[in-house]
Amino acid sequence: MKEFFTARTVGEARAGFRPARRTAVEDVGLAEALHRVPAADVRAPAEMPGFARSTVDGYAVRAADTYGASEGLPSYLDLAGSVRMGAAPTAVVSHGTCVAIPTGAALPDGADAVVMVEYTAETMPGTIEVTRPVAPGSGLVRADEDVAAGDGLVRAGRPLRAPQLGLLAAAGVTVVAVYARPRVAIVSTGDEVVPPETTTLAAGQVRDATASALTGLIGDAGGEAVQVGIVPDDRDALQATLCAALAVNDLVVVSAGSSVGARDETAGAVAALGEIWCHGLAVKPGKPTLLAECAATPGASTVPLLGLPGNPLSALVVFRLVGVPLVWRLAGCELPPPEPTVRARLGRDLASATGRLDVVQVAVRDGVAEPLFGPSALLSVLARADGYVVVPEPATGLDGGTEVEVILYR
Amino acid sequence: MKEFFTARTVGEARAGFRPARRTAVEDVGLAEALHRVPAADVRAPAEMPGFARSTVDGYAVRAADTYGASEGLPSYLDLAGSVRMGAAPTAVVSHGTCVAIPTGAALPDGADAVVMVEYTAETMPGTIEVTRPVAPGSGLVRADEDVAAGDGLVRAGRPLRAPQLGLLAAAGVTVVAVYARPRVAIVSTGDEVVPPETTTLAAGQVRDATASALTGLIGDAGGEAVQVGIVPDDRDALQATLCAALAVNDLVVVSAGSSVGARDETAGAVAALGEIWCHGLAVKPGKPTLLAECAATPGASTVPLLGLPGNPLSALVVFRLVGVPLVWRLAGCELPPPEPTVRARLGRDLASATGRLDVVQVAVRDGVAEPLFGPSALLSVLARADGYVVVPEPATGLDGGTEVEVILYR
Repeated sequence: MKEFFTARTVGEARAGFRPARRTAVEDVGLAEALHRVPAADVRAPAEMPGFARSTVDGYAVRAADTYGASEGLPSYLDLAGSVRMGAAPTAVVSHGTCVAIPTGAALPDGADAVVMVEYTAETMPGTIEVTRPVAPGSGLVRADEDVAAGDGLVRAGRPLRAPQLGLLAAAGVTVVAVYARPRVAIVSTGDEVVPPETTTLAAGQVRDATASALTGLIGDAGGEAVQVGIVPDDRDALQATLCAALAVNDLVVVSAGSSVGARDETAGAVAALGEIWCHGLAVKPGKPTLLAECAATPGASTVPLLGLPGNPLSALVVFRLVGVPLVWRLAGCELPPPEPTVRARLGRDLASATGRLDVVQVAVRDGVAEPLFGPSALLSVLARADGYVVVPEPATGLDGGTEVEVILYR
Repeated sequence: MKEFFTARTVGEARAGFRPARRTAVEDVGLAEALHRVPAADVRAPAEMPGFARSTVDGYAVRAADTYGASEGLPSYLDLAGSVRMGAAPTAVVSHGTCVAIPTGAALPDGADAVVMVEYTAETMPGTIEVTRPVAPGSGLVRADEDVAAGDGLVRAGRPLRAPQLGLLAAAGVTVVAVYARPRVAIVSTGDEVVPPETTTLAAGQVRDATASALTGLIGDAGGEAVQVGIVPDDRDALQATLCAALAVNDLVVVSAGSSVGARDETAGAVAALGEIWCHGLAVKPGKPTLLAECAATPGASTVPLLGLPGNPLSALVVFRLVGVPLVWRLAGCELPPPEPTVRARLGRDLASATGRLDVVQVAVRDGVAEPLFGPSALLSVLARADGYVVVPEPATGLDGGTEVEVILYR
């Protein structure tokens, strides 16, 4: 049992606990690719749009034929045909002629510009009057102006966003190699914990709140939560459950019991399965957090394990801080997508201890972030909180009225 | 065909185009409830935790027995037993006795406080020395301190967040009545548009980028996208497709063709199926937007229809502005969850016209938001943009260096 009592700051944990494990790579279609993490850069197979294209409704021309044109002295061009949307042009533009073209259509051969219809008039059938000069290249995009062949479309390790799915579709890339969703086992422990479905509680019993809330956070982080169930405070039973979970998951999360004794049992079971990297995180709430690399059998590839405090609110705080980045990292993403935030003035003073990160739940109204206090065991804070404020390690607190960033629940 | 040419601002469209349609209400389990919208307030069926509970490891006592206790003159109490986690207490606290209790266990009868183990010592087996006085109620939470029976747990119309799933689980509420995911049909139009799977493009053809990007945005907004396919620029064909889509969906989105003629065809087909509320939105890019209430058959319940510009980037801008709130509204949510944002200094001046909302794609580096320009037809902007900046209707532009809020893609 190594480094059993090593306590760390949240910053140290994020920078230092970096499991090497990654999920397998799998191919998915664009309809399933939202927020998934590409395993490799994707490059454009060909230039785009692939043909010179008009960006206006008007007439394809030789720019030189319009030089000097004005309202008073228009250029007159013979209409040599028209281009249909989606079809290769059949007409050709030669000196003194033009071809009608809609926005988005392919530029006919011979043309080097498109005059907007607003600056033209068909004064006689077949004759187009142009009242403004255009420069070569105006009113169109080049065949490779959007994307050149081989240009990067999306980058490995960056979760795919909706607009990028459009870009991939436009390039004809309809299948993307992405990291599989990390499978995250949730092991609930505690003699007092019963399933949420329990209709009537006996004195001393509590329903498992943590597993349901973690399932949501894991889903938001692109993972697949697997609720393993509730294990009593018994080291052998816990060790057997952890062992089974380690064999088939990418991350194992244990909500350790609330009492000191139950937490010691958890730490003992974890220590028997691997190496504890940190036991004790300098965060309030959340101090009893445990980080380890474990293996189902000696020599098997290691799986990160996160031991959370028994109190549900504390467990959620810690999972947001260190669990969510871990889930993204297992899927090949070092920089998780941004969370929604809002700036607000703090409703009152917040005390904090140097060297410890404090996470304070707040309700936001009219630009004021009002801290929600009460015994840490209270779940109802979660119903009223719009988000939380972080008081960083070096600070000794924040004064009421200070502008703070609230990380919003979504 | 009423109000065919009514142009609106984005603010007017959001405030004034308010379809009455809502999706059906369905019951879902907590594992499927993340970001779903409750159709009714959910109240606590019973008080929580449901029993007076210790919040520390220590000894349950009668507070009066500890008054005056100090290091120099401790109170001595007889140990009358212990409480097990998850079990109803069997021991009782009477005058001069105490009961060992772990964090989270039920307070035994007769006790009114819990002394932390740190302020006690078992000097002789069966005798506990208390070195600090405690007040009644300290070291515990009351049976209804977290939630009273009938208290609101979550509110109708507010998408469920991960922490709230934990609160519901704790209360034993494992099934929630929520609005069904809105079904959103995506109709792509244009003679030039071909499916993304098309390997080789003929001159003039473009792959359908908009449908894939919209599918992502619709998913983010809690909707279920249904890609209906690509319809050529033919009013009858489009009208038939729209009619079929209106019959089985909660919202129909049409990416109108790029050319003026194609857009007129779309407006004509829509006008035949219902009432056009606005044609022309004062936004750049995105002016040719169309909003309507249509019905598959005369007298059938109306379905909102959103006609988007043919250019994919413009289509996405408009869908974020007016489509996303519509999808949430169909699911009973008036106030969509917050988007991630970041403050940054504008990298250069942005011009804008009064009365028009401008949406400018930006890349954010080191606190600077650099506008990404180029012909609006360019999709590659989407690969480089981290988000966008909105220049509101009254403004005539923004100076470089101004602090702006960037709405980030996630």
